[in-house]
Amino acid sequence: MKITIKNALTLTPQGAGEHTVYIDGDAIAVLDAPPADFKADRVIDGAGKLLTPGLINAHTHVYMTAMRNRADDLPLMSWLNDRVWPMEDSLTEEDGYWGTLLGIMELLLGGATAFLDMDIFSEATARALADSAFRGGVSKGLTDISGWDGGLERLEIAQREIEKYKHLPNVEFFLAPHAPYTCSEKYLTLIAERANDLGVGIHTHLSESLDEQETALKQYGLTPAQLYDRCGLLTEKTVCAHCVFLSDEDIALLAARGVSVAHNPASNMKLANGFAPVSKMLDAGINVALGTDGCCSNNNQNMLREMTLAALIGKGTAQDATVLPAAKVFNMATKNGARALGATGLTGEITVGSKADLALFPLDFPGFFPLGDPLSALCYAGAGLRAETVLVGGKILLDKGEFTTIDADKVFYNVRKTNEKF
Amino acid sequence: MKITIKNALTLTPQGAGEHTVYIDGDAIAVLDAPPADFKADRVIDGAGKLLTPGLINAHTHVYMTAMRNRADDLPLMSWLNDRVWPMEDSLTEEDGYWGTLLGIMELLLGGATAFLDMDIFSEATARALADSAFRGGVSKGLTDISGWDGGLERLEIAQREIEKYKHLPNVEFFLAPHAPYTCSEKYLTLIAERANDLGVGIHTHLSESLDEQETALKQYGLTPAQLYDRCGLLTEKTVCAHCVFLSDEDIALLAARGVSVAHNPASNMKLANGFAPVSKMLDAGINVALGTDGCCSNNNQNMLREMTLAALIGKGTAQDATVLPAAKVFNMATKNGARALGATGLTGEITVGSKADLALFPLDFPGFFPLGDPLSALCYAGAGLRAETVLVGGKILLDKGEFTTIDADKVFYNVRKTNEKF
Repeated sequence: MKITIKNALTLTPQGAGEHTVYIDGDAIAVLDAPPADFKADRVIDGAGKLLTPGLINAHTHVYMTAMRNRADDLPLMSWLNDRVWPMEDSLTEEDGYWGTLLGIMELLLGGATAFLDMDIFSEATARALADSAFRGGVSKGLTDISGWDGGLERLEIAQREIEKYKHLPNVEFFLAPHAPYTCSEKYLTLIAERANDLGVGIHTHLSESLDEQETALKQYGLTPAQLYDRCGLLTEKTVCAHCVFLSDEDIALLAARGVSVAHNPASNMKLANGFAPVSKMLDAGINVALGTDGCCSNNNQNMLREMTLAALIGKGTAQDATVLPAAKVFNMATKNGARALGATGLTGEITVGSKADLALFPLDFPGFFPLGDPLSALCYAGAGLRAETVLVGGKILLDKGEFTTIDADKVFYNVRKTNEKF
Repeated sequence: MKITIKNALTLTPQGAGEHTVYIDGDAIAVLDAPPADFKADRVIDGAGKLLTPGLINAHTHVYMTAMRNRADDLPLMSWLNDRVWPMEDSLTEEDGYWGTLLGIMELLLGGATAFLDMDIFSEATARALADSAFRGGVSKGLTDISGWDGGLERLEIAQREIEKYKHLPNVEFFLAPHAPYTCSEKYLTLIAERANDLGVGIHTHLSESLDEQETALKQYGLTPAQLYDRCGLLTEKTVCAHCVFLSDEDIALLAARGVSVAHNPASNMKLANGFAPVSKMLDAGINVALGTDGCCSNNNQNMLREMTLAALIGKGTAQDATVLPAAKVFNMATKNGARALGATGLTGEITVGSKADLALFPLDFPGFFPLGDPLSALCYAGAGLRAETVLVGGKILLDKGEFTTIDADKVFYNVRKTNEKF
């Protein structure tokens, strides 16, 4: 399919300017001058709109969208024991599927086009991506906390899912050791080897809480990052979420290994872990992307809000208004996310040859108008803003506010049914 | 006019439940059983909607909405000298009027029904409130930094405006000494006396920056709060914005005087002042409300986002996930705001006899669904959410997304004209 997006204020790496974007198949063919014999199947009028690269949610558990607003204002252990785990125990894979589609609806309305997910129902995630045509990194959360055999079994299921769904163009698989405190060293090492054999990335939690940091030091005499490194888990294909309590040495280690970090500002605050050292990580050369985390610890899948949070708390904690400026935060939500998702081949930029993962925002929304600086607008002024039209891989998934691949009523019906169990 | 809002999930002080609300004139007449001979001029179907008290923005400079996204990521002095002041110097009262109407549009879409404003164009604010029927506390920013005569003249203008517009039912006037560092002690004392004579409240900035705190200590040997108290400015009719750097003694002083505080989380972070001691202030018994501040330091007038920020940074800074739970933050944005606005007679609650200042939100917005706990939903999950219908004083100002008293195109046209000057 060929699509033309005409005369939108377009955010390219060179800045914001009026452009016409010609899309052929899943990629941007050319800007401004139509390619020879280009006959668009669809022309989208971008006048009065802002065209941005699709935002990339670099760490989430999308199935949890079905559990929104049911685990709030609680200390971590009560949050887990009294709310999250009992709800999860009642979920079926079908619940996971519908919860994931609900999350994708929310992601699209927030201008996002891809996520990196860690899931108990990873097969449902792959199916939801296949059905919706949204783009995602899929990973099954792996742990051997309840025994080696269970750990092995989970890893084998993960490998079978990779085999079964690897043909999907919009899906990339990762292996996901859950965390240093839910995986043994032997298991972490096995996963690192297996990921290397399969050529897939690693998606994991790292240094999320002070307790995790102290436990690893006690148990191994190593920080969680050092433990991961000893297991061979830290590579250029690794994405570590949270990273709130990294030591300066940990930061240097992650930088040296070329690891990507997914910053989760809302979740880190809501679960009272605090504020990740984002500026320090960026200054050390780490590729820091941005993620919402799951809806039990956020309660949104909205990347615009996450950008605002990252920019504001960066300044508040540094007591320096120039820290984490809009352009840096925008990069975190776009091209740094693309790099974190690695094998998907995303650039996170509007350039010729890039995947046509794009979001179109209205410039006349009262909470977004007047635009002023477009990056400031996206970063600070996005409250209440919704994308109107979103393309993933050259396919229109949100068309003037309507979902083209998802039956919203069916999603609401099924998620309502899930909620009757809670 | 008589209005019935039928079968909405309604947030009353007793919790959330399905109710029908009967509105007669500017107030809520009764819940559930219709009053005798009640014939509604308009019936609003609330099924599938959440009905909340209108949110109250307890500190802003609404005219600044016209200057959105043009002063970001800058240190304070450059923010003021290079951006805010040059833009302000180019503004006319008409620019202020249209900027205020744009802010009111945004406020309505965010479910807000009232603000407390400090303005250089306070007469334009009053006119915008008269024309839009939004509710507001209006105050002209007062300073004698450029000389006593100028200070006196501003105070006299403010008094004339009070006289001219005091008949408006939706407008309350405050006197607004700008800040301890822009007003002399003599001027602050005069304003306190004048406010007392006129029976109006005080709206001011207090302890916003560390520099302010240190300057007052050097100049007066007093904290800014102690200086204000010596001038007679701290009363039950006083609203102090920011209050980031209050000492423990200052907090006790504000509590003893019955002062209200407007917490401005976004602005305090964006200008790198940090995090106000909100829990401490609440624990001391201070009435802490919530405000967005102006669009140069926020860049939104969206109270849902401000609630999220208050709840999240409360937890992040305390490293305690139970701090500032959704119910407390909701109270800050509703009944504490009502108390701060004092003379308006607002309660910030849906109760019989309360002003019919109400917001109706759709329950099937993908980023808000499933609702779970309604207070958690409003506090944490409001990203992308917009009020559908909003009433102020029993008058429908936003009707299924359409503004009834504001010509949106005219506002866009005029704010665009303002922006051509920058």
